[in-house]
Amino acid sequence: MVSFLYYWFKDRRRIAPVSFASDSVGLVTPQKFQFEHPLHLECGRSLPRFELMVETYGTLNADQSNAILICHALSGHHHAAGYHHEDDKKSGWWDACIGPGKAIDTNHFFVVALNNIGGCNGSTGPTSPNPENENRPYGPDFPLVTVRDWVKTQTMLSDRLGIDVWYAVIGGSLGGMQALQWSVDYPDRLKNCVIIASAPKLSAQNIAFNEVARQSILSDPDFYHGRYLENDSYPKRGLILARMVGHITYLSEEAMKQKFGRDLKSGKFMYGFDVEFQVESYLRYQGEQFSRNFDANTYLIMTKALDYFDPSREYEQSLTKAMAQTQCRFLVISFTTDWRFAPGRSQEIVDALITNHKPVTYLDIDAEQGHDSFLFPIPLYVKTLRAFLGGEALLKSTPHVEAI
Amino acid sequence: MVSFLYYWFKDRRRIAPVSFASDSVGLVTPQKFQFEHPLHLECGRSLPRFELMVETYGTLNADQSNAILICHALSGHHHAAGYHHEDDKKSGWWDACIGPGKAIDTNHFFVVALNNIGGCNGSTGPTSPNPENENRPYGPDFPLVTVRDWVKTQTMLSDRLGIDVWYAVIGGSLGGMQALQWSVDYPDRLKNCVIIASAPKLSAQNIAFNEVARQSILSDPDFYHGRYLENDSYPKRGLILARMVGHITYLSEEAMKQKFGRDLKSGKFMYGFDVEFQVESYLRYQGEQFSRNFDANTYLIMTKALDYFDPSREYEQSLTKAMAQTQCRFLVISFTTDWRFAPGRSQEIVDALITNHKPVTYLDIDAEQGHDSFLFPIPLYVKTLRAFLGGEALLKSTPHVEAI
Repeated sequence: MVSFLYYWFKDRRRIAPVSFASDSVGLVTPQKFQFEHPLHLECGRSLPRFELMVETYGTLNADQSNAILICHALSGHHHAAGYHHEDDKKSGWWDACIGPGKAIDTNHFFVVALNNIGGCNGSTGPTSPNPENENRPYGPDFPLVTVRDWVKTQTMLSDRLGIDVWYAVIGGSLGGMQALQWSVDYPDRLKNCVIIASAPKLSAQNIAFNEVARQSILSDPDFYHGRYLENDSYPKRGLILARMVGHITYLSEEAMKQKFGRDLKSGKFMYGFDVEFQVESYLRYQGEQFSRNFDANTYLIMTKALDYFDPSREYEQSLTKAMAQTQCRFLVISFTTDWRFAPGRSQEIVDALITNHKPVTYLDIDAEQGHDSFLFPIPLYVKTLRAFLGGEALLKSTPHVEAI
Repeated sequence: MVSFLYYWFKDRRRIAPVSFASDSVGLVTPQKFQFEHPLHLECGRSLPRFELMVETYGTLNADQSNAILICHALSGHHHAAGYHHEDDKKSGWWDACIGPGKAIDTNHFFVVALNNIGGCNGSTGPTSPNPENENRPYGPDFPLVTVRDWVKTQTMLSDRLGIDVWYAVIGGSLGGMQALQWSVDYPDRLKNCVIIASAPKLSAQNIAFNEVARQSILSDPDFYHGRYLENDSYPKRGLILARMVGHITYLSEEAMKQKFGRDLKSGKFMYGFDVEFQVESYLRYQGEQFSRNFDANTYLIMTKALDYFDPSREYEQSLTKAMAQTQCRFLVISFTTDWRFAPGRSQEIVDALITNHKPVTYLDIDAEQGHDSFLFPIPLYVKTLRAFLGGEALLKSTPHVEAI
């Protein structure tokens, strides 16, 4: 009886019509792209070969003029929109903005999202087999990669996809840094650049927070000098702490106040070290969840890529000289309550563009969610993104889409 | 020959004239005060007896009208001014403001500084022998104490010193919270209250940072559930992380930028996890130093005292109703770049006082050092403190001092 019911339910699930919201890209399947030639990295080392995990949404038009590249932030990946299976509760990380009729409209655009190398979501990274060490996991032997390295691999992916020029490269936070680096390093390969909640380089305070996160992981005895996988372990405590401190910097003080205030979990002081305030409960939960799903070596690599990012280094420490290279239109967006990369940091980018008489639209958007605002469908933000990308106009001007 | 030279040098040192700056209180000796009756605490537990480590500077006048109490912050103690021995390189933690001719002028005032219970600098705390457990260190069995508990012990110290009414109670940060609590709980026992770089209660973000610090310590395997002393150990990694994250919140972003910027220790990227940026070097050093000198259980107790502080709890969650109890004059000072307890937090206290028509002077002082500003002799700050305390006026009005 039990097995009959099981199969009956299983069958019903299988035959039940799959329904996603009409503005969702629906079910998506990641693809892996292999690159078999050695990749030379900024650190001086090379990867003999590498793979990139990629998702695409929408359809590439005949003249390849409608492609948009989405670059991910610290803990992001290739799964930016839609669902991986019918019962998937969680959509891609930027589902709020990518889909048919959404700000990044997949009715008009062919959207490409990837997991960067050094990541832990399918692209070659510290958890991948190291061909130079009997295919054991790379672990701490994975080289430190930079934003420039990532952008280089993204151009290789562009070539593979047959995209000479991106209609737009878009990213928030660390993703925005990749978009910025694209505009400087490959100025003729993108028409539009969207840099959201980002900065032209990290401040000493930004680096300091990253260093606390790194030391949390590095000093955890379960880190085993980075060889935790080979020791059937992982630095859970370190990852929890790293995520907790990171998370504080992603939320605005005001958002935390409104979300938790000084609310007590049990309504009264317990005079102990169990959870007392709701905010403690939230942070511990976030840390726990993260520690189960994210690789510690990747976390170290991502924070280092952030620290190293500074496109002005190649241009006599002048951001203005770096931005002089660019040829695309820019949309720069910051959020009023973002204190990780405060509006002033976006304005440094805008200033450098204006000095060069480059076309730039800048908006500082009133939002409560702090740095995390870039992930939310805040009306003015969404409208701005949609208007800047102008999908409708593209639809009218490209023969392939007109033909549909 | 070696021993002869040793004694010769030793002798010369002994006979060399000791010279401290003329505005230093010079050599000081802490005193221990014993309290033999049980102390009932807010958490519902009691200490059978306790000791307070105290330093005093200046001379108490005949009518005990010139006494000033200094309350310390998270990592502070009784050694607020002067030196402990002739070769002491490091003066007390608030030497910038306490001394003959300084803002808190020991020519006029009798200044009392103490280490609070739960501390680790001589007063009864987690490293003290627990009479109820064969005189082993209290460790994690030391009760969680509150700002109200501390103020209560400070009134007992006042009684012992024969001081019915303090001319002023002064504190910065967590010390300011004690001063504020004095004004509410014992309104007839202080004439002036100076609350510097403080807040009427912690925000969710403040609690979140404290929670990261606590989890760093609690999750360190060398913490041994708080019994590290009995295991000949201490949670060094946890203390380092706790101090690193704390330290970031003490400095302003601007101060960090000016102090370190993105300067590299070796002048170039090393693509590894050793120190690369100067700010990393600084934070690691601060963490290391702190971990050697501070007790982990005390750190936990101090952060909990911060979290629990909320004088409005006894007054229907109304700070205005709490401040209605007060009878003294107030000086409230904030610093423009303090983001741990931003100026707005001081203004909440000022607003509650103004609503009650209480005498309050408020200054938001332009300073670059962030929360740490309260420890620096910033000219306007020092002048304001001096003017508010009015030592000169006191000198003229008190017969005992006139007689000198």
